[in-house]
Order: sequence, then C-alpha cells, then structure tokens
Amino acid sequence: MSVEAVLAANESFYEAFRRGDLEAMDELWASDDVTCIHPGWDLLVGRQQVMASWSAILGNGGAEDMRCTNPLASVHGNMATVICGERIGEAQMIATNTFVFYADRWWMTHHHAGQVAQSVQFESPPHGPLN
Amino acid sequence: MSVEAVLAANESFYEAFRRGDLEAMDELWASDDVTCIHPGWDLLVGRQQVMASWSAILGNGGAEDMRCTNPLASVHGNMATVICGERIGEAQMIATNTFVFYADRWWMTHHHAGQVAQSVQFESPPHGPLN
Repeated sequence: MSVEAVLAANESFYEAFRRGDLEAMDELWASDDVTCIHPGWDLLVGRQQVMASWSAILGNGGAEDMRCTNPLASVHGNMATVICGERIGEAQMIATNTFVFYADRWWMTHHHAGQVAQSVQFESPPHGPLN
Repeated sequence: MSVEAVLAANESFYEAFRRGDLEAMDELWASDDVTCIHPGWDLLVGRQQVMASWSAILGNGGAEDMRCTNPLASVHGNMATVICGERIGEAQMIATNTFVFYADRWWMTHHHAGQVAQSVQFESPPHGPLN
C-alpha cells in the first residue's frame, strides 16, 4: 500500500487515457462505489455510468498528448488520493483521483477533473507543484 | 468514524462558508498535508496557502445562499471522501472533499470544487444524485 504503488496506478490511468485503451481503463476501476466528474460535467455515479462515459470519451481514440504532471499522493490506510495536473496540448487541467486498496492492488474509485483558468484571482499567486 | 460524522464535518464546512466564519473554517482543516482547488484556480498546497485563500474568499463576508446538495460519503478506515453539489444562487458547482480521522474527529484535508456546465456533452444524460 505504498505511495509508489498508488502513483503507478495513477499513471496507468493516464496511460489508458493516452492510448484510448478502454479495456485497460475498465480494469483500473473498482467494482462498485465509483464516481466520476469530467470537466464541466455533472456527477456520474456507479460503474455503468462511469464506464459509459469512458467508452464515449475514448471511442474516438486516445488523447495522445495527455500528460499527468506533478502527482501528489496521500495514503491513509487502504485509501489514497492523487492530485495532479493534466495537460492536453495547451489546455491545463487539474485532477483529484481517489483509490482504494483491496485484493492486493489499488483500484480507482473517483476521478474529478476541471480546467484551470489562465489567470487566477488571488492576491498572492500560489506556487503549487504544477508549475 | 461513521458516515454520519463525516457528513456532519462536511456540513460544518459549508456552514462556515455560508457564515464567512474564518475561525470555524480554520478549525475544520487538518494541521498539515492539506490541499485545495477552488473553481478555476491552480492547486494550493499546505496550510498557509489554503488558509490564505479562505481568508481572501471569506474576507468579504460569507456566501449566505451557498447550499450543499446531495452529499455522497465514502468511508474507508480513517479516510473519507464526500462528493456533493454546491449551489450559490443560479450557479451550480460540484465538489470532492476529503477528510482524515484522528484525535477523535474528522479533519478536512482537501477541497476540489468546479463549475458544472449547463449543457453536458454525453449521449445518455447522466442522472447523478445532484438532480
């Protein structure tokens, strides 16, 4: 249940995304209690809705230039989050991914991605690990 | 470490947001390893950045009409997520909040909120618990 293992699971998610590999994507997600929020979308609940969304998204092929940047993992017992940047071309997004550990591996239970605005309204500009 | 307790902690977060109560907000967050993603913002890392953002956001008063809708909690050992809708007036957002249990209570460790677009590009419209 190491940080390295959950970061590897997170990278497998982006690898499946890049390759448009629906089978690999399906294999990553837990069997139930899964949720997903794509950028601008409403919440998807349950395996059927979540996988239908990936089928629609990956149906036109993968996002070859999708890159996961500066993943930050936080592991507490058998649950973990990975927060990371996502870049596709010039678009910058940010994601919260959660994983649960059982049956000897980490399984994805939640993905929440949203766009990062170019200009952030903050007096003291943040210097997160995305830069 | 019940679902009810983590939902209560989540509601306390929105209550502090509504009231513009920076002290209550500060009391909710864990002592370290905290992160926050406000809608459209880049990642904020660490207590200093996160609380500075809340000071800026709540400095002009609370968001009196902020409502948390249909919270969905998932508890695994000493870590939990709550996914919920957020409404301020006509604006609809969606949030992933994470909590860690120690010292007899749940502490907030991450908040990720983003806007939901009015029109979702999905062949079969999702029917999440936000409706």
